[in-house]
Amino acid sequence: MPQVEVCFAPPMFPAYAREGISVVVADVFRATSAIVTALHHGVGAIIPVGSLHQAKSYLDKGYLAGGERNGEVAEGFAFGNSPFSYMDPAFRGREVVLTTTNGTQAIEMAWGFTDRISIGAFLNLSALAQHLRSEGRDVVILCAGWKDRFNMEDSLFAGALTDRLISHHGYTTECDSATASMSVYRSARTDLRHFLRGCSHRRRLAHLNLEADVDYCLREDICPVVPVLRDGRLVMAQ
Amino acid sequence: MPQVEVCFAPPMFPAYAREGISVVVADVFRATSAIVTALHHGVGAIIPVGSLHQAKSYLDKGYLAGGERNGEVAEGFAFGNSPFSYMDPAFRGREVVLTTTNGTQAIEMAWGFTDRISIGAFLNLSALAQHLRSEGRDVVILCAGWKDRFNMEDSLFAGALTDRLISHHGYTTECDSATASMSVYRSARTDLRHFLRGCSHRRRLAHLNLEADVDYCLREDICPVVPVLRDGRLVMAQ
Repeated sequence: MPQVEVCFAPPMFPAYAREGISVVVADVFRATSAIVTALHHGVGAIIPVGSLHQAKSYLDKGYLAGGERNGEVAEGFAFGNSPFSYMDPAFRGREVVLTTTNGTQAIEMAWGFTDRISIGAFLNLSALAQHLRSEGRDVVILCAGWKDRFNMEDSLFAGALTDRLISHHGYTTECDSATASMSVYRSARTDLRHFLRGCSHRRRLAHLNLEADVDYCLREDICPVVPVLRDGRLVMAQ
Repeated sequence: MPQVEVCFAPPMFPAYAREGISVVVADVFRATSAIVTALHHGVGAIIPVGSLHQAKSYLDKGYLAGGERNGEVAEGFAFGNSPFSYMDPAFRGREVVLTTTNGTQAIEMAWGFTDRISIGAFLNLSALAQHLRSEGRDVVILCAGWKDRFNMEDSLFAGALTDRLISHHGYTTECDSATASMSVYRSARTDLRHFLRGCSHRRRLAHLNLEADVDYCLREDICPVVPVLRDGRLVMAQ
């Protein structure tokens, strides 16, 4: 039976990486929710980059580019990682560059070890679980966290996906962090929004008046697409 | 109010370390349980070292030295990190060197950032909480984990200590991993042994016939001492 494991933050990822795994990157508030939303609304590809400098060099060449740092749109950028930005009909069919505080760094970390990377959020939970099952590989869910720390929302998502893979898709786990994330998810699942009220990034976003983003990112299965990394671009899985 | 935070494994510690904190290192199965047991049974000091090579050089000079790797007594050592080894009356008043797979490495990681390090286990939970309260500093609980991964028993201990500091000693937290560890601990507290039955290191120790060690390490408050680091030696807090 394939295994599912959870890595709570990028600094621990080398201890989870190994040959043949499929890695799911999750940054629920908001990078991976934005990426899933973008592809669902017709964006051709997202090009994830780690630094603002890289994103700006694409911007100078005429690309659309989103830049976010510390929850806010980065200086010099017209938009950041709010999923709503990526619903713009003007983005359809375009390639859009994105750099964020945690999510795009986590993608870069995973990419250092494997090419088999997909993007997870509550928005595409079921579609992603089915995609992983069809691949049949061992899965490591890499939570982007917050500046190399554990965060609650990504770990809750990891618990939700682990629960789904084990309960419905024949996966198993011997990984303590997968077990812990499921335990927390099962305590929280009846009201994720309420459970997250005291959590760190939730507070940060509330402070920035981003409540609508939070509500949107916690919705399940409204964007049934699976972004996967191909040659440095996140595109719809075939 | 002082804050309590939890770091789930050493690779994330740099993101939690800052000036003025007090760090509690926890490696419940079994390094920190052994250290607490040793001081409670009259050992003068434990000298934690990271490598087998360092421990062997002490051994060659006539020190008592424990060496453990992967749950077993390391080659060339007479004992490892079983707490029972440290109850030997012949150890009383002596300095004992110790190197283990995870615990002594976590102590070294913390020592790179601060001198204010204490040792935690279920065995000294209440005494430790009172000691921390008397210091009045912000606390970071550093879980040793297993080879740079999250593990369940250290995180459960972190949840127990966080719960104690918040419920009885006026601490507060804004740290998501502290909140998550409390959530898991509260699900598990009525029967920790049962909750841990499927967890990775618990299985490893069962395989090595170390059930008695596991049972012992899960007992609460039977060794009411607080080991603290002073000039590279773990001694009883004054």
